[in-house]
Formats: sequence, structure tokens, C-alpha cells
Amino acid sequence: MRFEPDAEGDPAKLAYTFGGFEPLVSVRPGTTVSTWTLDCFAGRVRTTADLPSQVCDPRFLNPQTGPFYVEGAEPGDTLVVHFRSIVPRGGRGVSSTVPLFGSLTATTYTAMLHPPLPERTWVYEIDNAAGVVRYDALDSPYTVDLPLDAMHGTVGVAPALGEVRSSLTPGSWGGNMDTPEMRAGTTCYLGVNVPGALFSLGDGHARQGEGETCGVAVECAMDTVLVLDLIKGGSPTPWPRLEDDEFIMTTGSTRPLEDAFRIAHTELVRWVQELTGLSDMDAYQLVSQTALTPVANVVDTNYTVVAKMAKRYLGDVRVMQGMHARWRR
Amino acid sequence: MRFEPDAEGDPAKLAYTFGGFEPLVSVRPGTTVSTWTLDCFAGRVRTTADLPSQVCDPRFLNPQTGPFYVEGAEPGDTLVVHFRSIVPRGGRGVSSTVPLFGSLTATTYTAMLHPPLPERTWVYEIDNAAGVVRYDALDSPYTVDLPLDAMHGTVGVAPALGEVRSSLTPGSWGGNMDTPEMRAGTTCYLGVNVPGALFSLGDGHARQGEGETCGVAVECAMDTVLVLDLIKGGSPTPWPRLEDDEFIMTTGSTRPLEDAFRIAHTELVRWVQELTGLSDMDAYQLVSQTALTPVANVVDTNYTVVAKMAKRYLGDVRVMQGMHARWRR
Amino acid sequence: MRFEPDAEGDPAKLAYTFGGFEPLVSVRPGTTVSTWTLDCFAGRVRTTADLPSQVCDPRFLNPQTGPFYVEGAEPGDTLVVHFRSIVPRGGRGVSSTVPLFGSLTATTYTAMLHPPLPERTWVYEIDNAAGVVRYDALDSPYTVDLPLDAMHGTVGVAPALGEVRSSLTPGSWGGNMDTPEMRAGTTCYLGVNVPGALFSLGDGHARQGEGETCGVAVECAMDTVLVLDLIKGGSPTPWPRLEDDEFIMTTGSTRPLEDAFRIAHTELVRWVQELTGLSDMDAYQLVSQTALTPVANVVDTNYTVVAKMAKRYLGDVRVMQGMHARWRR
Amino acid sequence: MRFEPDAEGDPAKLAYTFGGFEPLVSVRPGTTVSTWTLDCFAGRVRTTADLPSQVCDPRFLNPQTGPFYVEGAEPGDTLVVHFRSIVPRGGRGVSSTVPLFGSLTATTYTAMLHPPLPERTWVYEIDNAAGVVRYDALDSPYTVDLPLDAMHGTVGVAPALGEVRSSLTPGSWGGNMDTPEMRAGTTCYLGVNVPGALFSLGDGHARQGEGETCGVAVECAMDTVLVLDLIKGGSPTPWPRLEDDEFIMTTGSTRPLEDAFRIAHTELVRWVQELTGLSDMDAYQLVSQTALTPVANVVDTNYTVVAKMAKRYLGDVRVMQGMHARWRR
Repeated sequence: MRFEPDAEGDPAKLAYTFGGFEPLVSVRPGTTVSTWTLDCFAGRVRTTADLPSQVCDPRFLNPQTGPFYVEGAEPGDTLVVHFRSIVPRGGRGVSSTVPLFGSLTATTYTAMLHPPLPERTWVYEIDNAAGVVRYDALDSPYTVDLPLDAMHGTVGVAPALGEVRSSLTPGSWGGNMDTPEMRAGTTCYLGVNVPGALFSLGDGHARQGEGETCGVAVECAMDTVLVLDLIKGGSPTPWPRLEDDEFIMTTGSTRPLEDAFRIAHTELVRWVQELTGLSDMDAYQLVSQTALTPVANVVDTNYTVVAKMAKRYLGDVRVMQGMHARWRR
Repeated sequence: MRFEPDAEGDPAKLAYTFGGFEPLVSVRPGTTVSTWTLDCFAGRVRTTADLPSQVCDPRFLNPQTGPFYVEGAEPGDTLVVHFRSIVPRGGRGVSSTVPLFGSLTATTYTAMLHPPLPERTWVYEIDNAAGVVRYDALDSPYTVDLPLDAMHGTVGVAPALGEVRSSLTPGSWGGNMDTPEMRAGTTCYLGVNVPGALFSLGDGHARQGEGETCGVAVECAMDTVLVLDLIKGGSPTPWPRLEDDEFIMTTGSTRPLEDAFRIAHTELVRWVQELTGLSDMDAYQLVSQTALTPVANVVDTNYTVVAKMAKRYLGDVRVMQGMHARWRR
Repeated sequence: MRFEPDAEGDPAKLAYTFGGFEPLVSVRPGTTVSTWTLDCFAGRVRTTADLPSQVCDPRFLNPQTGPFYVEGAEPGDTLVVHFRSIVPRGGRGVSSTVPLFGSLTATTYTAMLHPPLPERTWVYEIDNAAGVVRYDALDSPYTVDLPLDAMHGTVGVAPALGEVRSSLTPGSWGGNMDTPEMRAGTTCYLGVNVPGALFSLGDGHARQGEGETCGVAVECAMDTVLVLDLIKGGSPTPWPRLEDDEFIMTTGSTRPLEDAFRIAHTELVRWVQELTGLSDMDAYQLVSQTALTPVANVVDTNYTVVAKMAKRYLGDVRVMQGMHARWRR
Repeated sequence: MRFEPDAEGDPAKLAYTFGGFEPLVSVRPGTTVSTWTLDCFAGRVRTTADLPSQVCDPRFLNPQTGPFYVEGAEPGDTLVVHFRSIVPRGGRGVSSTVPLFGSLTATTYTAMLHPPLPERTWVYEIDNAAGVVRYDALDSPYTVDLPLDAMHGTVGVAPALGEVRSSLTPGSWGGNMDTPEMRAGTTCYLGVNVPGALFSLGDGHARQGEGETCGVAVECAMDTVLVLDLIKGGSPTPWPRLEDDEFIMTTGSTRPLEDAFRIAHTELVRWVQELTGLSDMDAYQLVSQTALTPVANVVDTNYTVVAKMAKRYLGDVRVMQGMHARWRR
């Protein structure tokens, strides 16, 4: 199916939270959805002269496409989101520094007496065919081509306990995790908290570094094709999980960063136990010697860590009812 | 030159701190040193029946080979340590859980009312020729071959301000950083704090996961060949830096983990500025879109994060006076 | 006015979030409200045999009385909540340990591999006339009388950015701050985020220690008389502030705890600047030598720190348009 | 006995670390020592024109009086330090901001891209007879009298594991805890790690706020009379403890601040158990309802939290063999 967000209309009509919005469309499990997303600035930052604090309305940052109501999804189920393709629209991306936002600056939470760092905007040329994103320095003639590695920073469902959370925040419902692992070819698993799951996505990045240091990736609108499927019941999925051809991955999103690490690694130990039947201490040991642990972001209102284990260390296991393998074909 | 640690003798004669020990040997910059190191348990954990809390003396954990006095090294200089080869001795490695130590347990610093997790020891067969480390579960027949990826967990010099720090702790002097990047083919740069630098190393790992989740890698004695060289003066090296054929890397070691991230990324921004002449905001932006950020450890008395940037994004730069390229040949 | 919560009826009809509920009653600024609140367990934990995980529904924890719509309140205004009296109902309070909740235990965020600590419930006799709360140990005959010091753990308004937050969480909107400073005779100032402010309160404590170590205070239903008033415009109130006869107080609620400290102290520096006209560095210096900094809680999904300065150090200042002085008379 | 530090001579001859210095004097347990200490700047900051970064040598900050060798002290014993009087010398104190140091600024550990905050120095007139410390603003005519509340920021012994730690750092050995509780009338208990304990002290403050927000209190030289006594064996003292006429107190010093809280509160639970025979869960509960938790500092290389319980809640207990009561008489 094709879903067109009402992105050219009133920005107040798009979704800026997980939870709190009525679903715009209903899909059956197993549906392939073709859609697109606005960038995190709702398209208002276009040139190096556009500064977010001047051109953006703080109430309308990081607009999401959705929510999608997934038929039959009930609390305790696991939503399956397989990304078939994620392609930048429009040939350009933008990044910026934003006052009191980012990892190497005082923020509203890491509150200090410093004035903000300078607010600047960078524009990147994107060549989809060549797979290149071009960085151009502002203060010197330096330029360098970086590999295109398109992904979605924000992917999630409605939270538990009746909460409604800003699309700027990641947590157990997914949301603004900002991990480069959320690329085409990856499957994301999200625990369902409300009937229909109420899935939405946005915040396309042509690429980002691990940690998203300044708080803003190479932001662009995206054409995205994804499959929405459902696992009824079974083991719960308390925090978002990912799978690609080589790895299973867990996420943790909270503060301080070591607690995000602890969540991701505890989840990985528990998942390895489920898959292999190893005892808890044996699984802890195997994770200790094999996990990869890339930081996702240290800039959002919660920080995100990813823990990865190669599936080849797990023997002949069937992960999440074989969902990744099925939709990858 | 060949240096033999007095490892078969009195454990009280080995070095267990950075600083606080007289140098055992003096080397000229540019010397290739062939030596070996004991494992972190000083060889006392040999079978699955050996529990660290029973067989080890807490005063004699993580013995170091050294210190080496590097001739001409003065505070403000940078010590260059290039690893030519790191090869496990003896065909076996061990790992264990240790009471109140590790990332997924209460510790003496993350103090709680829980009793310790169970103390267990795992033994790994190591096949150097095949490049394989074999994991054997304790509580079920599960076994899996993991790739050998030998490295040193602990590499450092005497600290500043007259401090003497346990070999269990990482910091600005290096020490127990526990990053898998410290493998053969890598060059490590350490700021010199005292005359002669007083370099030592130990804590060989046949492999480890990123984060060293349970606090103990696949520990083994190592045969190691390294080059010790010196960069006189120049830009200071406030925190340990690494370089391999593809990446420059910075480290930060402190708590909480986001501050370790902040140190590593600030260092990377500053290093990129030095190498490219980019402005600080331009370097911040380039790091934000290109850094890789693997967690090193979340278990030691300080946590360690590594930040990496591919050298191909930096143009035709000469890093640290070309030291890596010189010794890599 | 008198407001009766529908507390004897369907628990699903009470408010368990800040935001997300329609106001139940409208009040004019300057109204004295007499009402009462359920305890955080909705009255379901009554004896030492009642364990929260068995008798409570996790969806219906920490019920709030409200929301109150305050007439004329607009975003940018400051809501004034002056507590005239807070009196325990029913002669008893309860406390408990709760699995994976509290500061000296693994939790769902500080995730570890430990099994939960034992779940236990304590019952306290409360003598309002004598001002005494009696602690009775469970495992030995130890008993001791503690001073009654009644307060509300949870006091807040609807959050900004369209968020809806669980009543278990504190933040810039107030909520579950769990500071013993929220007692009769104190005035609380809350920034208004939505029309009408949508104020509610609950979580009465007969007393609590600073930090609320095990996560649960001496919980009881409360008879409370408070004044709701409004400051139109003026300086914004980005985080909850308090005032009593001796002190002005700021709060910060986030993780890690040093960031909660940073918010509270930055807020105190800014408030002192506003009140005295001191420069930022002079205000920073005065706060550094005079602040009291009691920890409020280290157990909720965000931690809370309070910073206090004696008003006598500020000269003859008029705080918040004299609201505390007016309603204290 | 009277001990005169060599404070007028070569600053390089004073002690700037805990551990790493030979004892200067030997005392028998039960000795009353009359001595004095330099301020943390070694007297080099005298007027508002003296900026620490210009007039101080970073190697010679926070000089300590000592070390004292306490006869008979062995690892596992507890050193008793009772403060009889702490009186400012010289009628003046100084404070300052220091580049990249303090809680509301980027630091070398909370590394950011901000330039440092302005460096400024304040001078306080101290009137010992009137008990007054006078704050004078730099940028406006504001002045206010604050109560004199003299204390030592730095009190400690040689650390364990052969470590030598800067006098700028607090930890399990004591050191730079910067708590206002370390005043005359208080008894401090420190676990002994090396023969003779090697006690030293310094860093007098005419007063400080809780948290020592800008990183520098009202610093002054001090005339101090203290008793050094010894408890042989018995329960170990893993972290510094304090006692005054009303309270027992524990400390925790590490990062993040919640871990300092966890150490202090775990220690308090354990101490209450020892003193009362309560079960661990009963002691946890009693601490949860009665602890006071003032933050000590959020500025040093480790942060410090204090947890306090009123002795009147503990019944008729004998704390630390009655040491406080004995020396208080």
C-alpha cells in the first residue's frame, strides 16, 4: 500500500509524539507500505543561512509519518518492522548545531552557566546513484565525500502506562533512538503497548556518526518502503530489538549512558538465553566475549546504546519466528 | 631487545600500579622490545574449579611487565607504542565472574543490597595457528569457536601529579582501558608525565567483547613484540590515542559513561582540527557524521569509550609525525 | 471550595498521568481548596501481608486528585500552590520494598542479572495529635517513634510539547518529586504549559527520608487544604520552585543525579540574579557558599535534587510577587 | 603535642597526595595535636586581582599538613580523628572560579567545546569573634554577612592497593570530601590501609555551601586542634564515617553522583544493622524514612554524598566503642 503523509499542509496536523494521536490508516500484518517522511526540521532548514532557532517552531520538530494502526496488535505482542528501502528525497541534506543541544555542550539537562555554542547550518549534496554524501566545511574550503548510509532516526509505537512522549525522546517504545543500524535490510522488533500498536516513523538521516555528537545527523526527507508484520504473544519485547543478516541487536535508552548499556546488555543476555537454552551465567559469559557495542546517541533526552551479537555464534537458531529471514527474501 | 619479567618469582616483585615502581630496564627510542606478560590473575586461575576470590591475592591482581624507562622522555612528550605481534602463550585462556565486579551486577561503587552473582570460571582452548578461541558452556554442552583477536587490556605510563594508580584502573595515563583496538598492528600514543615515561603493559586478552560485560575477558599470558619510540614536544597528548592502518582513535576513561564519551569525542574534534585546519564547529560537524564509537569497558573503576575516524576522510594528513606508517612497514 | 475525588469508585477513573486527563473542576485564582488524596497504592496495601506486586495493578499506581483547571492560566504563567495543611487520614501508613524498584537494588533501568530483593511491607501507626509515626521492625521486636512530617510526593501540572507523563515520574512539570520540603507552610511554583494548567496532586507521605532510599515513603491518604493562585506572565518558571518562611528552593529532576544537581543549582543562580541584580559570576559565588542541597529521591524514573538558599542572605527582596507572604498570613 | 608544618619553606616539601610521602611525625593513639594548615592555594591567592591560573602552580595545589604516623595502626584498624577546634587564621578567606573546574561549567572530565567561564576571585573578611564571614560582590555594591562555620575540606589516610592519590580527590581513604560536616565537635572515622595510617589534613573552609558549586569554598589557613585515636580491629570501615552529638554519618565518593549516594546509603544501612541488630530489610526501611542526605561536593574528581541518621532513632547504642563521647567530653 501507499501512504501519503499530509506533509505539505498544516504542520500542526502531523504527529510529534508517540501516543496521543489518532491512527491515520489501518494495515493488516504482512503489508508492504510505501511512504515518505519529512526531515526533522519539517523542511524549514534549507540553506546555510537557515538557523533552526530562527526558522523552526519548537512545538513542530521531528514530525512523524503515521500513526499506523496494525490490525490485531494487542499489548504483549511484538510489532515487526522490516525496512526494504530507505532513499533520500531531493538531493540534499542539512545538519546544524542547535543552542543548548548536543553532547559537547551544556544543555537544558546538563545545565551550566555557559552561553550556547555558535549556531551553524551545513548543507550536504546527496548523490543516491553514487552513494555519496558530500561534506562542505563552512569556514575553510575543505570538502570530502562520505558514504551514503540512509536510515531512520525515529521509529516507534505508543508507550505504555498511557504516556505520550515527544518524538525527540527514545525509550522502551522506540522513538528517537538515532542508531545507524536502522537501515534498509534491517528488521526492528517493538513491544506493543496499546491496541493497534500505533506505529510511526520519521527523522531520516543520509548518514550519522555513532553518538550523533552535535545532536543533528545529515537530515533529509526519505522515500521508504517497509513491511509491517506482527508476532502474536510469545516472549515479550520490553525494549526495541533489531536483526540484520549477520547480527541480533538490542537497545537501551535512558540516562546515564551506563544504564543504557546495562539495559542493552541485560536484554542481549536474556535473548541469548532464550535462543540457546544457555544458563544465565553462561549467556553472560558468551555476551562478554562477543558483543559489539556501538553508541547510538548521547544527545537526546535519553541516550541510546546498541549491543550486537553475530548470529553465527548462536548455532542454528530461529530468531523471532523467522521474521527477518522471511521478509528479507 | 629481549626483556624477561620476573614472573616466576615473588609476585610481590612485579608491578601492580602505574607509577610507584622503579624502572627495571632502560630503552632508547626506536627500540623493538620482545617480552611477555602474565595474565591478570598472575596465572592462578587455571581450571573451572579455580575461583578468583579463593586463589588470588587482591593485592597482586593484574601484574604488569615493566616499567620501562624510555631515554629522553620528558613531561610534555608523547610516547609511541607500536604493537608488532601479540600471541597467546600456553594454549589456554580463562574467564570468570568475580563477586561485586562487572557491568550487570552490584559493585563496590554501584553499591546495593544484593548478594553477589555466582562466581564461575570458564576455560577456553586457544589455537593460535587456526586463529580460534573455543567457548565451552559450563551448564550445558554448548560450544562455539570464536575468532582469536589478541590484545592488551592494560597499557600505560606513570600518571601526573605524583599519583600512583592501580593497574585495575584506566585514565589519562592509559592503564586498564580494555579496548579490543589495542591489537597487533595498532600504535598507541601516551602523554609523558614523568622523566622516562615509565611504560608498562599486561592483561593480555585472546579476545573480548566491547564493554567487557562481566568484567573479565579471555585472559591469557602473551608473547608480545612492540616498538617504543618518542615524539619530543609538539601538541600534548592529554588522553591516550591510537592509530591503525585505517583509523585514528581517541579514548576517554571516567564515570559516568557519557563523560568518557565526551572526553573521547572532544579529543577527536581537537585532533581533527589540528590535522586538517578545520574550525572547531566544522570539525565538530565532521566528527558528528563520521565517528565510530565502540564502548571499551563498563566494568573498571573508570569506564572507557573509544572514538574513531577513518583517515581517508582527513585528506593527505601526516599523523603524529608519521610514526604509525614508519613502524608499520 | 471542597473537592471530592471519585476515589471509592472505579480506579480506572482516577488520574494516573500529568496531562492526558480532562479537568474535573475549574477554580478561580486565589481559591482555597479542601480535598483529599488516596495513597500511592490506591489503598490496596493495608497489612504486612499485602505485597504491592500481588495486590496492585501496575496501571493504577499513584492516583492523583485532579486535574484542576485554573481559570486564566496560560502557557508562560506560573501556578502558585500554597499548602495550608496536610493531615494523614485513617491513623495508619504503609511502606514496602517493591521488586526492581528503589535506590539500593537493580531496577528496570539500572538493569542487572540479580534476582529482586525480598518484597516486604511495613505498617506504621500514625498519631496526628502527638505528631508521631511509629516504625515497627518486621524481623525483630525493634520499634521507634519518628516525627510526623506530612507532605505530598507528587504535585504537578500538564507537561509541555503535548507530552503525557506517568504520575510515577518527576520532571519540569513537577510530578513525583518526592521531596520532604512539600509540606504545609510551603508554597510551590509551577510553570504553566497548557491552558488551565491542569493541576493535580497525590502521593501523601506521613514522612520520608531524603532520597526515599527504598523507593516507598510512609504512604497514606491525606486531607489537604491548599490555595491555588496564579502569576500572569513575568519571568518563566522552567522548573518547579518552592518557598517557605526561611528559604527559596529550586528543583531539578533528571538522570544522572549530577544533572539534577546542575539544573537545581543553575536555577538557583538565575533566581538569585533576578532577585538581587547580582552578576552571574557573583550569584554563582554566593550560591556556592550558602546553598543547602538535600537529595529528594534517587528512586523514580528521574531523580530529584533540591537547592535551597536562606532568604535572609538576599536582602529585602520580594519573591514571586509576594505570593508566599500573602497566603502564609 | 604541637606540630608545625614547613609551610613557609619550599612548597615542594609539603604533601600534595595521600600516600607517597614519608611521615613527618609519629603520635601515640589518644594524642591531642595542635597544628595549622595552609589554604588550598598555598596562600598565593590574596586579593581579587590574584587569579589561580596565574599565581598557582598546578603541582602544588591543596597542600596537606602531615602525614602523621599513628603508632600501632595496622590495615583493618579504624583511625579516629576528633576535631576540638578549627579557627581561621589571618582574618581573611578567598574564593574563586577556576577555568574548567566546578559543577556548572565544562571541565576536563565533563569535556565540552565551550571556552571556560570567567576566572574571578572574591575576598571575604572573617571575624572569628563575631562568627561572621562577609561576602562582597565584585560587580555591584552587594554585601552580606554569612555565618562562620569553619571546617576541613580534606582529611584522609594513605589509600589501599599501593595507590597514591592527589589531595584534590576524595575516595574510600577520605581526602577531598568537602563536606561542611567536618567541623569542630565532629569525629571522623577512617579505615587504615597501611601501617601507621599516614594521616594528613588541609583545605580549611571558613564556610561552604552543600555541593561547593563553583568548586571553591571560602578558603583560609586554619588553626586546628584534633585528637588522633585508634580502634584496633573490629568491623572494618570501608568508607569514611562521621559522628557528632546528634548524628551518625556515612560518606560515598565516586561518579556518577547516584553511585556516591548508593555507597553512602548502603554504608548507613549496614552500620544501622550492626548497631541495632535489625535485619537488612528492616534497616533499609528505617534508613528510607529517616536519612538526611546533604550533597557534599559535585566538583572534585569524585563527587561526595553524606547520609545521616539521628542517633536517637537507634536506641541506647554504643557507636565506635564510644570514641565520640569520650573525646567530646
